Amino acid sequence: MTLQPEIDGERLLRRLDAFARIGATPAGGVNRQALSVEDRSARRLLAELALERGFRVFQDGLANLFIRRDGSDTALPPLLIGSHLDSQPTGGRFDGALGTLSAFEALEALEDAKAQTRMPIEVVAWTNEEGSRFAPGVMGSMAFAGADTAAWKLIVGSDGASLAEELDATIAALPEAAQRPIGMPISGYIELHIEQGPSLEKERMPIGVVTAVQGTRWLEVCIQGSAGHAGTTGLAYRRDPMVAAVAAMHSLQATIMPLDADARLTVGRITAQPGSINAIPQSVIFTVDLRHPQPERLDAIETEVRQVCRAEAEARNCTAAIARSFDMPGAAFSPDMIDVVEEAVNSLRLPHKRMISGAFHDALFIARVAPAAMIFVPCRDGLSHNEAEYVEPAHAITGARVLLQAAIVAASAKNN
Amino acid sequence: MTLQPEIDGERLLRRLDAFARIGATPAGGVNRQALSVEDRSARRLLAELALERGFRVFQDGLANLFIRRDGSDTALPPLLIGSHLDSQPTGGRFDGALGTLSAFEALEALEDAKAQTRMPIEVVAWTNEEGSRFAPGVMGSMAFAGADTAAWKLIVGSDGASLAEELDATIAALPEAAQRPIGMPISGYIELHIEQGPSLEKERMPIGVVTAVQGTRWLEVCIQGSAGHAGTTGLAYRRDPMVAAVAAMHSLQATIMPLDADARLTVGRITAQPGSINAIPQSVIFTVDLRHPQPERLDAIETEVRQVCRAEAEARNCTAAIARSFDMPGAAFSPDMIDVVEEAVNSLRLPHKRMISGAFHDALFIARVAPAAMIFVPCRDGLSHNEAEYVEPAHAITGARVLLQAAIVAASAKNN
Repeated sequence: MTLQPEIDGERLLRRLDAFARIGATPAGGVNRQALSVEDRSARRLLAELALERGFRVFQDGLANLFIRRDGSDTALPPLLIGSHLDSQPTGGRFDGALGTLSAFEALEALEDAKAQTRMPIEVVAWTNEEGSRFAPGVMGSMAFAGADTAAWKLIVGSDGASLAEELDATIAALPEAAQRPIGMPISGYIELHIEQGPSLEKERMPIGVVTAVQGTRWLEVCIQGSAGHAGTTGLAYRRDPMVAAVAAMHSLQATIMPLDADARLTVGRITAQPGSINAIPQSVIFTVDLRHPQPERLDAIETEVRQVCRAEAEARNCTAAIARSFDMPGAAFSPDMIDVVEEAVNSLRLPHKRMISGAFHDALFIARVAPAAMIFVPCRDGLSHNEAEYVEPAHAITGARVLLQAAIVAASAKNN
Repeated sequence: MTLQPEIDGERLLRRLDAFARIGATPAGGVNRQALSVEDRSARRLLAELALERGFRVFQDGLANLFIRRDGSDTALPPLLIGSHLDSQPTGGRFDGALGTLSAFEALEALEDAKAQTRMPIEVVAWTNEEGSRFAPGVMGSMAFAGADTAAWKLIVGSDGASLAEELDATIAALPEAAQRPIGMPISGYIELHIEQGPSLEKERMPIGVVTAVQGTRWLEVCIQGSAGHAGTTGLAYRRDPMVAAVAAMHSLQATIMPLDADARLTVGRITAQPGSINAIPQSVIFTVDLRHPQPERLDAIETEVRQVCRAEAEARNCTAAIARSFDMPGAAFSPDMIDVVEEAVNSLRLPHKRMISGAFHDALFIARVAPAAMIFVPCRDGLSHNEAEYVEPAHAITGARVLLQAAIVAASAKNN
């Protein structure tokens, strides 16, 4: 290389603004849901920018969009860098867009510097990460990683649209992109994303090196007791499911998270039936959102939740029925790729910490087929999936610089 | 007295059946809401039975119905015995009717035996105890005890009817009854009622001697925290109002009732906002129904609830706002009248226990103007305000026997 590739911060911020205008909401956020007209406009803009720079553009049968810059060794599979362009219906400007546009900026920086990489590097914009219009989310990366997509043909969106038809229309709207089959060998994957949580901002860390994505399980706990008059039923005659539910939640809240820094336990929803002020409830139903990066710990925590709920219910002559309504396994990222990212951060002399992602990302699935890692930057007040989502310009640029540096290192690796 | 007055059990059960047909529901309950056509039919039937026996019949401006049997001392105010004839929309056959018809049976038993009492005895059927059609309930007894009824003119029922018009129509439908002003001096009041709770049945006690009616307060506790992502927000960054609410409820449930046998604390309603499975709630709102017969203890318990909720909220960087939405003071019954009832129970050699009423009754208000007491009999499974409400015939008859005996003792007392 004759010139050190460098992120053009102004160009990156200008691009973030340009994409934020596609599906812009009055409150300053974006509504650019997967496979919508707005999503197609964003894909078109990115493809046109790529073609202008002489990069090749591809899309596969799930409308995943790839922008390729060749490497010196034509036999090597590409390093992928990117994220997604779709948003929540009242989403922010940075969730997904930051990672995708920073990856494209990295590609341009390499091109500006006429830098040669050993591997090809491809920018990817995965289809339907959010899952708000068409569930499930992380659809493009899941399919890329080999998920069986046969049943997806029948998926209907929240607006009544057919997924299959919207996929076809989206692909047809970008005829400049060459078609590719879904899935291919890749050398690795690096994704830059906003944290969507408060820790980096609170700890004044510009960079998080993500080592794993938590697995998530949702449980619904229904404790059945016996309805009764609040005034006429003495303590000895109560089978109060609220008392049992509260005892179970209290016990779990006092142990699971305090004793394991990687664990998350959240009760976000609760109802009592019949819900009269002056009646002991017949039943209390609450949800438990459990997260942990290690599958065996998640299993152990789920077992503990079940045991505690049953024991506290039985202690009050109630019964507990516990159902698992959602199970998304987590992933530990490749130690080698984590090291590559950390090396890049160190070479830029940036304060950082290793951390675990509490939210899903496309990297969760790509990690199953290639060495993967993620880079997090802070977002204000930890806000995301919110029109007020905000990232300091300096943080966005710093994230892009780390991504570029990590990509240069990863794309030069000998062992892929 | 030449003949010992005795309850005619068969007559009492026949009467209970006859009144249960007025407003009978297909499921075996009754719908005889206050001042309805059905309520008027029941009042008419009772008045006709009374007039047949030669008793005098009165009603006051709130349609409270009185049936008078004179005593030997014409200067003495009457002893009142009775309850109410109105029901919940899906009410049972015994709530109110048992006490009213047993009181009338007692009057007939005295008449059958040609027994002379010193005081006059009057059977009373209070208007609108239930409060389901026209709120508030215990309206007739509240007015009798001196409540200001001026604002009641404007009350509109759940069916859109005017209380004032329905009162006028109900009074006009019974022209045989002589008019009386609302309220008058009385010597005492005894009310037989079903327990509406489980304790007598579970303890196999045919009779409860009621010493007090609990005071009731309703609090609404709103704990505000900070919404956040269930996965990305670590323990140190959580301001989780659910954790604070659970800790407060757990602390109160572990102390208030176990430490004070007369206290009741019930959380019957709870919600979390926004109520997403995968989000730390922004706020949790729950209700607390508090009961205690002693006003100063009720005050102390309310203070404790407020302190615990505030402390547990603050400990988690949340805030607690606590509002009192209802406050019904309790009443301790007259020790003399309690002794009269207990003496009657003892003379009949019946197992019994002293107990506190957890529900409101007309006696709550009458106790403010005269020595009052109540007699409870068991009801199956503690069920009331329910079409499945059921009282064993033997229990109904036993209750009427206690009421008759207590009335004979009370109506002969020297000190009134």
